[in-house]
Amino acid sequence: MRALIERELSDCSKPVRDLAGHIGAGRGKMIRPGLLLLSGLACGGITGKHIHTAAIIEMIHSATLLHDDVVDEGDIRRGVATLNKLRGNESAVLLGDFLLSRVFRLCTGLEPPAARTIASAAVQTCEGELRQIAQRSNWRLSESQYLEIIAEKTAALFSGACSLGAMLAGGNGRQVKMLADYGCKTGIAFQITDDLLDLTGEQARTGKPIGNDLVCGKLTLPLIHFFSSAGKKEKADVIRLIDHPRSSSKRVFSLSKILREHGSIDYAQRRAAGFVKQAIRSLAGLKDSDGKDALVETARIVARRTV
Amino acid sequence: MRALIERELSDCSKPVRDLAGHIGAGRGKMIRPGLLLLSGLACGGITGKHIHTAAIIEMIHSATLLHDDVVDEGDIRRGVATLNKLRGNESAVLLGDFLLSRVFRLCTGLEPPAARTIASAAVQTCEGELRQIAQRSNWRLSESQYLEIIAEKTAALFSGACSLGAMLAGGNGRQVKMLADYGCKTGIAFQITDDLLDLTGEQARTGKPIGNDLVCGKLTLPLIHFFSSAGKKEKADVIRLIDHPRSSSKRVFSLSKILREHGSIDYAQRRAAGFVKQAIRSLAGLKDSDGKDALVETARIVARRTV
Repeated sequence: MRALIERELSDCSKPVRDLAGHIGAGRGKMIRPGLLLLSGLACGGITGKHIHTAAIIEMIHSATLLHDDVVDEGDIRRGVATLNKLRGNESAVLLGDFLLSRVFRLCTGLEPPAARTIASAAVQTCEGELRQIAQRSNWRLSESQYLEIIAEKTAALFSGACSLGAMLAGGNGRQVKMLADYGCKTGIAFQITDDLLDLTGEQARTGKPIGNDLVCGKLTLPLIHFFSSAGKKEKADVIRLIDHPRSSSKRVFSLSKILREHGSIDYAQRRAAGFVKQAIRSLAGLKDSDGKDALVETARIVARRTV
Repeated sequence: MRALIERELSDCSKPVRDLAGHIGAGRGKMIRPGLLLLSGLACGGITGKHIHTAAIIEMIHSATLLHDDVVDEGDIRRGVATLNKLRGNESAVLLGDFLLSRVFRLCTGLEPPAARTIASAAVQTCEGELRQIAQRSNWRLSESQYLEIIAEKTAALFSGACSLGAMLAGGNGRQVKMLADYGCKTGIAFQITDDLLDLTGEQARTGKPIGNDLVCGKLTLPLIHFFSSAGKKEKADVIRLIDHPRSSSKRVFSLSKILREHGSIDYAQRRAAGFVKQAIRSLAGLKDSDGKDALVETARIVARRTV
């Protein structure tokens, strides 16, 4: 699959190839393509189409990362300087567009249901991102609004990947639905955990700076829980900490200490674990197999990860 | 077609609708969808599919404008403030992505050859844009490199639109090829003229600031001609004028005066007219019809326009 992505990115003019070398497509955790393949395994087996489609899903993810880094003014990703930092926003915007247009062209060779699933996941991802920036610095964001946003901006691609895996393995409608549910719940747990790592992680492990969500005015689950349950004075202290144009690791550390003492970190972890349980439960009707076992294990790892 | 675009953009969540109201899709010259419809007329007649596909082409164009304005830091477009100016780069990047993903989803409902034509045009547009930024501030760009860039970044979508028009009207392979050639040459003439207007136009008429290409380090045909034919002293004078972090209308005026006196403006106009002639010649084998007449007239207007 890495070879497929590399081939797709090398089949272009030199300036594009030079830029494409920076994006690190195929160097991440590859969780979305991994889920697609495991879903295939759990529903009858993997074909060449699975590999091809998994590469497409990872390319979409790479494109969203490129644009996310422009949107969030991210400097570091996967432990290295981002393309927008190295070569300017324009390169990151245009290379993301290039990736998306290549995806779009690759999809014209797929069966219509598979192409539709991918396109719908891409639309939902964009809608979620737009919803999120519309809620920037809204310190009153509710938990349900937050969950709606991450279901679109993150879980839609997880869900699409899993349902494609089932679909391409010849899974029936029920199986496709089970895998779509599993992907959605796993994606939500993944994003809650990702947001937690922004508060409690270590840059050396996560490969990206800590506290960036706060700088971008993104409210995540621990803070939503805190604001909905803390007293006036505690809230004022936290607002002072987060209402600062730039976060420092010291400030993020103080904040995560307050959130931990208040039980908000725990709360978010429990919510992530709850979605993992729901994800696993979605697979209940699926025949036992190595693929199913691996999916169960993957969902568990998603909420326990530290990178 | 405007109604189709509006419907596609209104079928989404409120924050997205709010943003979509800014982009002015359907408020431009609509030249690409216009060419698609005329190409259909010239090859047998227009169907509902033509209207649908023309809307898709205009949505792609709107998305590229949104991202171009981020890349070029454009403040004004079509006489109004750009979305990146009003709502920040992030909104412009994400709304462009949203438009592209909607296009992608709409294309999954088209016949594969039509979807492939659109996807290939999108890929080429992106490749051209990336090639262009790789050549930023390269004052030695050759005319052939310039033509290669604009053939991809602009003419590919023109060519795609025209060949789609022919294809959807049931045109044969020869007709589709003729229309693709016509679109390519018309697109090149359009872009040469667009670049000329950046030097010689009036903001009140073009709806965008003059001299922006220079600020962005984009070398266009009059300057390429000048650098390839002027003496050392003249070149040094021009480099002084353009090597300035911001252009002023006074500086652009001085520059366009030098270029005019040197014959470089004339040269670019003659080149554009030459491509118009080639575009018209591409249609020679096409049966006479109102559609063909309108295509001929459109190509002529493209190189004569002042807006």
